[in-house]
Parts: sequence; C-alpha cells; structure tokens
Amino acid sequence: MTNSDESCAAPGEAPLAGLRVVEVSSFVAAPLGGLTLAHLGAEVIRVDPVGGGPDYTRWPVTASGASLYWTGLNKNKRSVTVDLRSAEGQQAVRDLVVSSGPDGGILLTNASYPWLDYDLLRQHRADVIALRITGTHDGGTAVDYTVNAGIGFPLTTGPENLAGPVNHVLPAWDVACGLYAATGILAAERHRRRTGQGRSITMALSDVALAVTGHLGFLSEPEVTGHFRPRIGNHLYGSLARDFRTASGDSILIVILTSRHFADLGRVTGLAETFSEVERAVGGDFSTDAGRYAHREVIAALLAPWFAAHGTAEAEKALAQSSVLWQRYRTFAEVAADPATAANPLMHRIDQPGVGLVTVPGMPLAQPGLPPVTPAPSLGEDTRDLLREINVSRSEQCAPREDS
Amino acid sequence: MTNSDESCAAPGEAPLAGLRVVEVSSFVAAPLGGLTLAHLGAEVIRVDPVGGGPDYTRWPVTASGASLYWTGLNKNKRSVTVDLRSAEGQQAVRDLVVSSGPDGGILLTNASYPWLDYDLLRQHRADVIALRITGTHDGGTAVDYTVNAGIGFPLTTGPENLAGPVNHVLPAWDVACGLYAATGILAAERHRRRTGQGRSITMALSDVALAVTGHLGFLSEPEVTGHFRPRIGNHLYGSLARDFRTASGDSILIVILTSRHFADLGRVTGLAETFSEVERAVGGDFSTDAGRYAHREVIAALLAPWFAAHGTAEAEKALAQSSVLWQRYRTFAEVAADPATAANPLMHRIDQPGVGLVTVPGMPLAQPGLPPVTPAPSLGEDTRDLLREINVSRSEQCAPREDS
Repeated sequence: MTNSDESCAAPGEAPLAGLRVVEVSSFVAAPLGGLTLAHLGAEVIRVDPVGGGPDYTRWPVTASGASLYWTGLNKNKRSVTVDLRSAEGQQAVRDLVVSSGPDGGILLTNASYPWLDYDLLRQHRADVIALRITGTHDGGTAVDYTVNAGIGFPLTTGPENLAGPVNHVLPAWDVACGLYAATGILAAERHRRRTGQGRSITMALSDVALAVTGHLGFLSEPEVTGHFRPRIGNHLYGSLARDFRTASGDSILIVILTSRHFADLGRVTGLAETFSEVERAVGGDFSTDAGRYAHREVIAALLAPWFAAHGTAEAEKALAQSSVLWQRYRTFAEVAADPATAANPLMHRIDQPGVGLVTVPGMPLAQPGLPPVTPAPSLGEDTRDLLREINVSRSEQCAPREDS
Repeated sequence: MTNSDESCAAPGEAPLAGLRVVEVSSFVAAPLGGLTLAHLGAEVIRVDPVGGGPDYTRWPVTASGASLYWTGLNKNKRSVTVDLRSAEGQQAVRDLVVSSGPDGGILLTNASYPWLDYDLLRQHRADVIALRITGTHDGGTAVDYTVNAGIGFPLTTGPENLAGPVNHVLPAWDVACGLYAATGILAAERHRRRTGQGRSITMALSDVALAVTGHLGFLSEPEVTGHFRPRIGNHLYGSLARDFRTASGDSILIVILTSRHFADLGRVTGLAETFSEVERAVGGDFSTDAGRYAHREVIAALLAPWFAAHGTAEAEKALAQSSVLWQRYRTFAEVAADPATAANPLMHRIDQPGVGLVTVPGMPLAQPGLPPVTPAPSLGEDTRDLLREINVSRSEQCAPREDS
C-alpha cells in the first residue's frame, strides 16, 4: 500500500510523524504503549468513558485529587470522552479508529468490548490494525500484581530468612507489556505498508511475564538442571554483588562482574592481600564470577567492616577511583530533589493542568526531531474537534463523488 | 526511499520479514531488543568476540556449563564471531552493518567501540540507523542493579519493619530498555522509509528507569505533594491488596480495585456484614479505593483468619466464584513444571545445542505469520556464510558497473 503522506515527510520530523493511534485504555500497559508512540511523534488519541476510566483518580494524587499517575501516563495525547454504553458512542469510537487516513486505522486497547472487536472494525476498514491486551491467553483476568505472584519472583525476592512473598513496587509486567505493545504496533504498521494488510494482535499480560521470565533462563533452569534459584537476599545470582552499610547509615550497592572490578575493589578497600589469603584458605577461585559467588558470604563479611568504618562520602570517593560498579541507594524523594535529575535532558518542566508546574520525563530514545513534551490533556478536551472531524469525513464518504 | 523488497512482500509473511539488524551486544537489554525483533521475523545477527562476550557463560548454567541465560536471549538469531581487536575484524563488523540492502543498515549495540561509531558507519552508508545503549546519559557506567539502587525502588520494597534495601531479582530496567530499543529501531526504520534518512539514537539505561519511574508518578509525588510512598510491605499503594497465608501454608494475593471486587470478597468469605460494621465503627468509607487503602490493616486483619482457616484448594474455589483478582504465589520450579505452561501456545519445545530439549517462550504479541521459534545458534555458527556474503557484496561494489 502506498502512503499519501510519504511525499510530505520531512527528514527533520519526529520519527513517527503522521502515525495516528486510537487508545481505548486504562491503567498502565496500554497507556504506556500509547505514551511511547506519542513521545516518538505519533498522534495518540486516548478514549475514555464520560467522567474518566477506572484509573482516572488512581494514586498518587495531589491534594486536590488530580492523579499524578494518570497525567504521567497520558502526556502528549489527545483526549476524547464518549458514552461507551450508547450505540452512538460506540460508533463514534469505531469511526475514530477507522477513519483517519492511511497512517491511521490503528487501535491499541486493553478493553474487551465486543463492539470494538477486530472483525467488526475490519468491516469498516480492511487494513485496520488492532492490538488488544488481555489478562491471560485463555481469557482469564489478571493484573500486574497477580501475574507477578504467579510467575515466581515474589518468593525469590527479599531477605533469605523471610518466609512469605515480597511483592514488587514497580509494575514491571505492565511496563514490559506496554513497550511490547509499542513494538507490536510498529511491526504491524511496517507489514501493512509493505503488504496492504492489517492484522489483529492479542497479547496477554501473563504471557509477557512468561516470555521474559523464560528468555532470562528462570524457567529452563529448574526444567533442565533440577535446581532453581534460591532466595539469596540482595546478592546477585552467579556474581558478587550486595549492599553494604556505611558509617553514615547509607547503603551502597557493589556489583563485581569482572576480575578487573574485583582487583579494583581489593585495591580501594586495601583488602587485596586479605582476599588472596582467604581465597587460598577456603580453596576458592576469586578470579571467576562463579568462584566469587560461591564464596560471596565470606567476601561480603570481609568488606562489611570497611564500609562500616567509612562515611558515605569517603566510600564513594574511593569507589569512584575504581572500575567497580556501585551506587548509593536513594529514595524517590531524593531522586526528585536531585538537581541532576532536572538537569538531565530527558526531563522537561511542564505546566500540567490540575497539577501545576512539574518536572516530567520525555523519551529515553534520544535522537533529533523528538516532539516537545506536552501535558496530559484535560479529560475530553479534544472530543468536539475529533468527533467533528469524523463527521466531516463521514459526510464526505456519503456524498457521492460524482455529485461534486 | 523506496524499498526494493516491497513488491516481494507477501501478506502471510512475518511482520518484520526482510528487516536485517546487526546486534553487537552482551547481557540483557540489547540482546532482548534483538530477540524481540527476531521473534517478529527480522533477521538478527549477533556479533561477538571470538570465544564469546562477557555474558556467554552467565548463570543460570547447565551442568556442562552452557548458559541458559545466553541461549534464552539469543534464540532465532544468527551468530558471527570476529576478532574485535583487529582492524580486519572491525571492518568486517562495519561491512556487515552497512552492506545488507535497503532493509538492512541497522545496528543495535550496548558496546561503546569508537570503531563502531555512527559517524564512521555513516561514511559508508548515509542512511544507517544506529541505536546505542549506554549506562548513564552523560557517559557514566551503570547496570540494571545499580540503576535500580539509584532510582528508589529498593528502599520502598519489602517488609515495613526492614531497615535496608531490597534488590529486585527481575532486571526490570534491562527488560524495559531492550523493549524500548526494539520500538526505537522500528520507529527509525519507518522514518527512513518515509524520508530516506537514517539516524543515531542513544539510550541510557538510567534514563529508561528515570522515564518509567517518572511516568508512573513516583517522582512527581514527592515533588508536587511533598509526600512520598512509604514502605508498605505487600500492600498496594492506594488500593486494597495483600498476601494471605492459607491453612495449607501457601500464600495467596488478593487485589481489590472496584466496589464489585470488595462486595464479592465480603460474600465469598462471609465477612460482608463484618466489613459494614467495622466500616461504621472506624468511620471509614470502604466503597472507594482510598477508603479501603486507609483502613487496609483492619480489613486485612479481618481477612487473615478466614484464609488461615481454609486450605488453599478451598480458598481458591471460593475466590474463583467471585470477581476478586487473586493468585496463589508460585515458585519458578512450579511454573516450569505446570502442564499449563507447556500447553500455552506461547511456549515451544526446542532442541537447544549444548542444552538439549527445553521448553522456551516465543513472542507474546500473538498474531498470524510469526516465524517458528528456533534455538540460539552455536557461537560463531554463521561467521563464514555472512562474511562471505559481505565479501561478495564488497567485490560487486568494487567492480565498476560500466565494465560488466
């Protein structure tokens, strides 16, 4: 299929200029997918029921009740609200999906409305692309936290002596799902451009977890070796890495992935000779990841007093003069208040309606031509313009060309 | 730029058929980006130093030392090994990147070799696309675990009474970075197709964390409200959700996001009336997320005895008759051994050289025309074929057209 916009495309444009995606969404995954496309220059139209979806007031919120979660995930989008229970509202959403030119006809959703089904959309636009996020592949319900409970991480995270699970705070599966969705839409759009064919894509949140967990070897390990990763606190499986507490009471993470890292760690802590003697004493091999991992407790026990005897600034200064991978643990509040955060070219200062001035991130894929970062729309702010546009386009479709 | 393959593209093809990406990579992010493109049908060529990169033996490993991590992340790829320290080897990698037709000319890397710089590649192919993953945006080193320590999650994860950080076990930032990379390459390829222009993209792993954490409101919350999310154990911030231990000793996660969920929870546990009475007694409003969250400890204290008095099967049966979101916590070994895992259409049984028969995931973006899932290559298995191809193409380039 040829693209009528092709001749208008300018080299300095945003990478996804011209692309239009209708997002019927809520919570994290689908909105993050749409946000990712929007930050690369696509026009993304979020559709909500009148009054907002179930995520419209989700925490964190401001004192006046504006959701920092909703505004954060819907920057750079347009907003349409319609009565999703009415036949007219449903028709308007379908029209919005199918009527937007050769670079449109793309739906991203985590809703399961029968009236938004691919086969129905396809009757109105043969080359439509519809990506639907579901809970499980066989129609079950699931959210990030239940998926995480079911896949294995909570029983492997946290202190070794803990009996129960440790939930994650980052909804990592929603995040991965949203980014898979952005990839899936662009892959389908490439295919459509080359073949003229649209497609229906479904993605289960639980399949995202199963795929990533599998790719990383967490499932093949018990299957193939009969072993599985024990709960090892803050150690890194197969390497030497752990947190240490300084004399100032901070925690610093140390990650050793190479012999050079380890040699440098020995040098800056003055423990090089001790490491060698202990290596001989325990019959270990501290020159390999596996050898350092096997003796992680004894190495950590040698290191802990060094950190306990040094203030954070002193420890950081020593580590900075080495190849060792390290980082002081910080709180969200510290990150937000760090002048380096605001100074990062990723971050933008915007005036978010309902929130006020706030520092927000844009697109980590740094490149020329990215669009400016703009606030999330007010709910329904673009309803009139976009529905009028559809009606115009519909009346144009209805008016026989030969009459004009 | 027009694509000479365009006429050959068939509707039933994989969505990324024809695309060729050269991946000079190690560890998780870049390899997962390449894997994602490969599972959508792109030809992905992983380039390693002779003998393998620093991730070639990374845990988990089999008894014979094959890395389940490496094989898991490099399925469906081709493998080339060259001496990356020799001028000839470096030239061969550059040739591989630039010489592969209109749908090639794409580099995905987390390496910082000066000889693989965008400006150098561009001299050989004006429309090359080069996506480089770095540690921090200003040239610093970082890996997933150090990034996570620096962004705030470890000090907010885990039991409320814990003093120190809790590291994550899933390298969530690497995963997000890899998926952003797949998106970024497809966006750049669309742009190239429309404008004829390639581009250089850089993405810092730490920026991925900053972007996602910011989008979800974790940073604007302390900035705007002065509050920040406390460590709340396994509770879900702003909602009613927690793990409960059954009489069988299992843990089950309950997530309540709507009034219907809560009403159903009251019904199946027989606690509806108690909830109402306690709601009045504490002057709460259990009809909203915020109200249930405010009184989460008392609600959880009412629920805990019900779970403690019921075996897992019994509790699961009751919950299955409700809209409540729930999931029993499982280990990786349980997930791997569950017949439902192998029966999931996402999973494929392959014979992985060095590992043997193993069940592995494919692409969670379910759609027609996905390529079959194939094992990771043996290290260097495609070196001869691919370098020969380059040499052929190079001699064709050198032969003046008018002579033929």
